[in-house]
Amino acid sequence: MRVDIGNALASEADPGITRDALDALDERVADARDRIANGMADDEFGYAALNLPERTDADKIEAAVEGFDPEAVLTVGIGGSALGAVTITEALASDSPIDHYALDNVDPAHVDRLLDDLPLAETVVHVVSRSGTTAETLANFLVVRDAMDAAGVDWADQTVVTTGESGPLRDLAESEGLPALDVPDGVPGRFSALSTVGLVPAAMMDVDLDGLLAGGRAGADALSDSLYDCPAYAYGAVAYALDERGASVNAMMPYVEGLESFAEWFAQLWAESLGKGGGGQTPVRALGATDQHSQLQLYRAGPRDKLVTVVRPRERPDCPIPETDVADFEYLGGQDLGTLLDAEFEATEASLAAADRPSVRVELDRMDAESVGRLLFDVEAACILAGELYGVETFTQPAVEWGKNAARGLLDGGDFAEAEAVREKTKLVVE
Amino acid sequence: MRVDIGNALASEADPGITRDALDALDERVADARDRIANGMADDEFGYAALNLPERTDADKIEAAVEGFDPEAVLTVGIGGSALGAVTITEALASDSPIDHYALDNVDPAHVDRLLDDLPLAETVVHVVSRSGTTAETLANFLVVRDAMDAAGVDWADQTVVTTGESGPLRDLAESEGLPALDVPDGVPGRFSALSTVGLVPAAMMDVDLDGLLAGGRAGADALSDSLYDCPAYAYGAVAYALDERGASVNAMMPYVEGLESFAEWFAQLWAESLGKGGGGQTPVRALGATDQHSQLQLYRAGPRDKLVTVVRPRERPDCPIPETDVADFEYLGGQDLGTLLDAEFEATEASLAAADRPSVRVELDRMDAESVGRLLFDVEAACILAGELYGVETFTQPAVEWGKNAARGLLDGGDFAEAEAVREKTKLVVE
Repeated sequence: MRVDIGNALASEADPGITRDALDALDERVADARDRIANGMADDEFGYAALNLPERTDADKIEAAVEGFDPEAVLTVGIGGSALGAVTITEALASDSPIDHYALDNVDPAHVDRLLDDLPLAETVVHVVSRSGTTAETLANFLVVRDAMDAAGVDWADQTVVTTGESGPLRDLAESEGLPALDVPDGVPGRFSALSTVGLVPAAMMDVDLDGLLAGGRAGADALSDSLYDCPAYAYGAVAYALDERGASVNAMMPYVEGLESFAEWFAQLWAESLGKGGGGQTPVRALGATDQHSQLQLYRAGPRDKLVTVVRPRERPDCPIPETDVADFEYLGGQDLGTLLDAEFEATEASLAAADRPSVRVELDRMDAESVGRLLFDVEAACILAGELYGVETFTQPAVEWGKNAARGLLDGGDFAEAEAVREKTKLVVE
Repeated sequence: MRVDIGNALASEADPGITRDALDALDERVADARDRIANGMADDEFGYAALNLPERTDADKIEAAVEGFDPEAVLTVGIGGSALGAVTITEALASDSPIDHYALDNVDPAHVDRLLDDLPLAETVVHVVSRSGTTAETLANFLVVRDAMDAAGVDWADQTVVTTGESGPLRDLAESEGLPALDVPDGVPGRFSALSTVGLVPAAMMDVDLDGLLAGGRAGADALSDSLYDCPAYAYGAVAYALDERGASVNAMMPYVEGLESFAEWFAQLWAESLGKGGGGQTPVRALGATDQHSQLQLYRAGPRDKLVTVVRPRERPDCPIPETDVADFEYLGGQDLGTLLDAEFEATEASLAAADRPSVRVELDRMDAESVGRLLFDVEAACILAGELYGVETFTQPAVEWGKNAARGLLDGGDFAEAEAVREKTKLVVE
């Protein structure tokens, strides 16, 4: 991975960071790096994520899915249990004859339609929940199982489970004899893309798991005590520093459709890890060039509260634009769509700089397993570094418990005071 | 449409708005309403958008697509030329036997794959560009045309154009005898969902255009000079007031998959219309319940800079959760996915209130043409009101021109000083 922070310097942008401030920050990076290295060495909760490329056993995952030859894979999971898997297959397997779907919401219309459309007899279901107690995931799995029954399909022959050591899903896997993989120890869902949690659909779709993990290992090897040597830390440190200077929004804007879900994955990673104690940069999911025609006006001329992260592969496949005599468009004829997209990438970056708005450029070599594995690892490492710099508990998400209790109370799943608060909502209705 | 601003009051949230401040704001709403009503009466640029439900001729659109019986519709357009059309068909026609795709980016890998997958002989192409000079749209159209030629398909028999009175696309339509529809006068793309620009694919997919327009007309009839009487103005005024009080981010979070693209459409509308002169609320696209497992931690415990807009239909189709003996989940069995989703909706809203974070509830009757037409109209009206309150030029997007010139210069499409700035980029590369 290659990170260019030139357009985040105070000489180019406001907010921006001076060279002196960057040097001072680099000393804090060295301290943070010590803390992180210790956490990795001790396999401490969360820090253990950075050991996944070394620890994940690709052969075991491939063995678990051997013998399946489906037309579709259906991931039943939510949040970190789905986003990594979707990110990887979208980036690397969109050409696969196998389709990957994720049931990551409990919308009745959507679930119903998806089950109507899926070739259930040729679909492998991958159910993912660390605790085995995620309400949305269990509810969806019950509905899927029922639909398979109704279609005369033996769901137990086509279901793979990834879960923790104990819990309802583990019990179910044991009682039904389902292939079951372990979620990695000590790793929150949003940091588990490069593990069983993120790799099962990819394995079925013939993604090069070894390449992905090798990319991750290259990221781990590149971790250093200076942001000037380590692209992951350059990114994490600069994002943090810009937030401190007012860039409270980080627009993640890949210029490649295969990374559209990566921006979603990033948004979870950044929001849940850093959004704490009244702070944390708000991630915004964008897509170049499409969002030039949607968000760029705001990024250039709105509040000075944004860092725009532009991401691209340095190599793209060809897709030539035919020669044309359409008036005014002769200049496009004979060029390539990728050339046009790269010109727009550079133009957007420069247009932000011309308006003194900070951006950071992140480049991959190309859209292959190694580069994507490296990207995911490096962005996780950047997030963990940022967590140290902010001084937050990067690996927890305590603020979501309240709502879970409230929902459970509303559904008569127990006595929860939170449900009372829901019933007492203040109303001021206009209709 | 029904808007509940109870959880945006200062008694419930920080930032929040007091009843007194709301009353004071209501006087400004009355003034803004005068300005808007005059703009509508004179069909002034932009304000004319609010006349579309009255003016759009559904019969003419239906006549233009009569005789087409495709397996797929491909919209070639970008920004406002695609988002409205996608929003409408996703909300109302996801059950259609016809698939709707949008080519709204110039990613070579994606374009290539889509053209490989599409049944070209059974695909109708809808090319949309007001000016007829949008580089991405023209480039994509040239590529699509070429692919059809190569597949032995006569593209001219399967192409519908929507464009302005003159320009390269108009010339092409005339020289090739293509069915051509007019973009409405005086309406920027992002405000043109309820016109030829947004309705052509919907017409082919048997969406009830009359219902959509009737919903829009109901919104127009409900415009009034008080936010207490008009849900559109309640929403626009409160979003503005909260931004003034620090809620610089507006997370649009529908709790229904059919409105996922609506959040994208909203993001363009809000960002391009209001992101000006150093101000404007940053729209964030979210989806409930999925993003509870991704963004909610940040929304509840991060900076107090967010308004969360939760949207739902008041009626949902059934999708029962089977009875279960899975430990701890008996309470879900026999309920419905929609009940679970609604409990999560209310729980999220209450969990934000419990953390003193503002939210606004927007409710549709159900996911039908009339309600969706009303929603789109009301959100446009809210945006126009907010533009008046901010005092910005709601209907222009001047900040995007710089990048267009730069990209064109880079592609040897003329002499543009902006291209020079791109070449002089400041670099600080870490790899």
